[in-house]
Amino acid sequence: MKFSSQDHQMMQKAILLAKQGIFTTAPNPNVGCVLVKNGQIIGEGAHLKAGEPHAEVHALRQAGENARGATAYVTLEPCSHYGRTPPCAEGLIKAGVAKVICAMVDPNPQVAGRGLAMLNAAGIETASGLLEADARALNTSFLQRMETGKPFVQLKMAASLDGKTALKNGESQWITSKEARQDVQRYRALSGAVLSTAKTVIEDNASLNIRWDDLPLSIQKNYPEKKLRQPLRIILDRQHQLTSGLKLFKVGSDVVTISSHFTHSIESQKDHLHCNVCDEGKLILSEAIDKVAQEYNVNHIWVEAGATLAASMIEANLVDELIIYLAPKLMGADGRSLLNIVGLTAMSEAIELDITDVRMVGKDIRITAKIAR
Amino acid sequence: MKFSSQDHQMMQKAILLAKQGIFTTAPNPNVGCVLVKNGQIIGEGAHLKAGEPHAEVHALRQAGENARGATAYVTLEPCSHYGRTPPCAEGLIKAGVAKVICAMVDPNPQVAGRGLAMLNAAGIETASGLLEADARALNTSFLQRMETGKPFVQLKMAASLDGKTALKNGESQWITSKEARQDVQRYRALSGAVLSTAKTVIEDNASLNIRWDDLPLSIQKNYPEKKLRQPLRIILDRQHQLTSGLKLFKVGSDVVTISSHFTHSIESQKDHLHCNVCDEGKLILSEAIDKVAQEYNVNHIWVEAGATLAASMIEANLVDELIIYLAPKLMGADGRSLLNIVGLTAMSEAIELDITDVRMVGKDIRITAKIAR
Repeated sequence: MKFSSQDHQMMQKAILLAKQGIFTTAPNPNVGCVLVKNGQIIGEGAHLKAGEPHAEVHALRQAGENARGATAYVTLEPCSHYGRTPPCAEGLIKAGVAKVICAMVDPNPQVAGRGLAMLNAAGIETASGLLEADARALNTSFLQRMETGKPFVQLKMAASLDGKTALKNGESQWITSKEARQDVQRYRALSGAVLSTAKTVIEDNASLNIRWDDLPLSIQKNYPEKKLRQPLRIILDRQHQLTSGLKLFKVGSDVVTISSHFTHSIESQKDHLHCNVCDEGKLILSEAIDKVAQEYNVNHIWVEAGATLAASMIEANLVDELIIYLAPKLMGADGRSLLNIVGLTAMSEAIELDITDVRMVGKDIRITAKIAR
Repeated sequence: MKFSSQDHQMMQKAILLAKQGIFTTAPNPNVGCVLVKNGQIIGEGAHLKAGEPHAEVHALRQAGENARGATAYVTLEPCSHYGRTPPCAEGLIKAGVAKVICAMVDPNPQVAGRGLAMLNAAGIETASGLLEADARALNTSFLQRMETGKPFVQLKMAASLDGKTALKNGESQWITSKEARQDVQRYRALSGAVLSTAKTVIEDNASLNIRWDDLPLSIQKNYPEKKLRQPLRIILDRQHQLTSGLKLFKVGSDVVTISSHFTHSIESQKDHLHCNVCDEGKLILSEAIDKVAQEYNVNHIWVEAGATLAASMIEANLVDELIIYLAPKLMGADGRSLLNIVGLTAMSEAIELDITDVRMVGKDIRITAKIAR
């Protein structure tokens, strides 16, 4: 099917609407919808929060009776299943829309073409594939987990330009700028879960939650504090070092710890997942992450930890994207290194990256990269 | 004086002309000249090589008799002294130009306003300061040495993203990409001298000259091999380790070694400067560099050496600009570090940089920075 210039404009609008939910819809996907009749927009909607109405519902409510005979532009195939809300395909049929154009089919096994099939069966014309690449970019992590079963894992690293994370004596505050630290808060806010280790939590007495005041001002403007969604916090605690007095447990949002015994529990901890994690097991770390993602419906994991977990995760091939902040400082040869990998004997053993983005964040450089396979 | 839109256009043209000489005029400055009469360009010129005619001479030759009554736009104050060529101010007077507009006064103590004074004395109207910032950018190193007596020193560094210059076993070929290595050839070609150490020269059997074939193609197109200007090579050889068999001495262009004894000489070495350099002396390294710059008329020194010289030069405040290539690789914790500085005990002791440019060169990131004073 050939799409018209109006089709493109309307889908572009639907994509913009979808972006309204980037901080809040997890674990659901970002979706936008525009209803058009006689060249005029008669309804708009975005999905904003899991459990709340989908984009199509908002748009249909706005259009009311006028929806009859309209064309719906949706960034993702309308759902066909009863979740916390009824299926959107049904809503579009009941409202009497004449045509549904979507940017892409929903890979969620509960949908996967059934939404379009329902619409077709009701005599509604459908089309898919309009601005698909842009629509996919809205939901990188959701799509990856639906398509592969694996959450999208982003690993944060921060160092001086000469690759040091701390001085020899451990001193590290502050290597990066306030703007980079705000950017980290933004990544936490985009994620479904923050992953770290007991060691990092204890050393920094880190809460690993989002502090709304520390989000960049540009985000605060469109994301009021009362709507703040806190990601799950997942802590690798193999040796049961976490204690209930830690700040981690004093702030809102759930904590999941991964340890190697079933019997351990921590007072005041809201939630506790047990996984068998043994020290030698690369596969085990991978299994633990997949298990938490499945059990807690997490698409996107943001990892903030030290050089050792970073090395383990990279070596186990668990990292989809690296976000590296380099501060405009030189800290010398005896500082702590960014990555605890040792014993390379040939350059061919070095970990090769594909850099996909480089930009300044405040005074720091932020590099986005994937591991070259 | 207020400059007209035509004035701006013509000076912009003169600046473009000046850029024709960026690889070849050293140690002379890059200068461009445009002669304009009745709104038409009647002569153009650029200074291309020390000892050859200045920009004004080329433009005057092209204009011939027509130069009488014209306006000359020159990116640098016309010279007033007899060097290898007669003074340009005299040429402009003889040709009968009516007006001379220059972008900036020449800080060279041999000129320093005398060119404009000569023109004024001959009844020619003069003005200065048109597009001065752009004109200054043409001659950063020349201007610095004229204004401060110190050459402009650029320090090259190259490492993996985690700040390693080699594996533990010393293996380092190749960390950076072909494009980055071509970019290094370009920097050598822009410089007046390449500075390195005997250690680096011996370890890599490095020639440190420019291999025309390795220049970026975009530069080869406008810079034919027969016009190639080789920079001086300055080698710190405190312990007299250099031997005549090294590749360094087999290729064209002069070598200056800096050592601590007057008696040492190396067969087949074309040139040999002796400086007292003792190991403890930061000031001494600075003096040696200034002495070589003065004796050999070097404005711009490009430093390629290891982590130890880099550290000495940064600690002695001798570096005007760092050019840092970071390759998209992670080499781990036991590799060799970018900078041999140790013993920092507080973050306030870290060397702070101001980043002025970040861009991709092939697959590598190139960072340009100054040391924040």
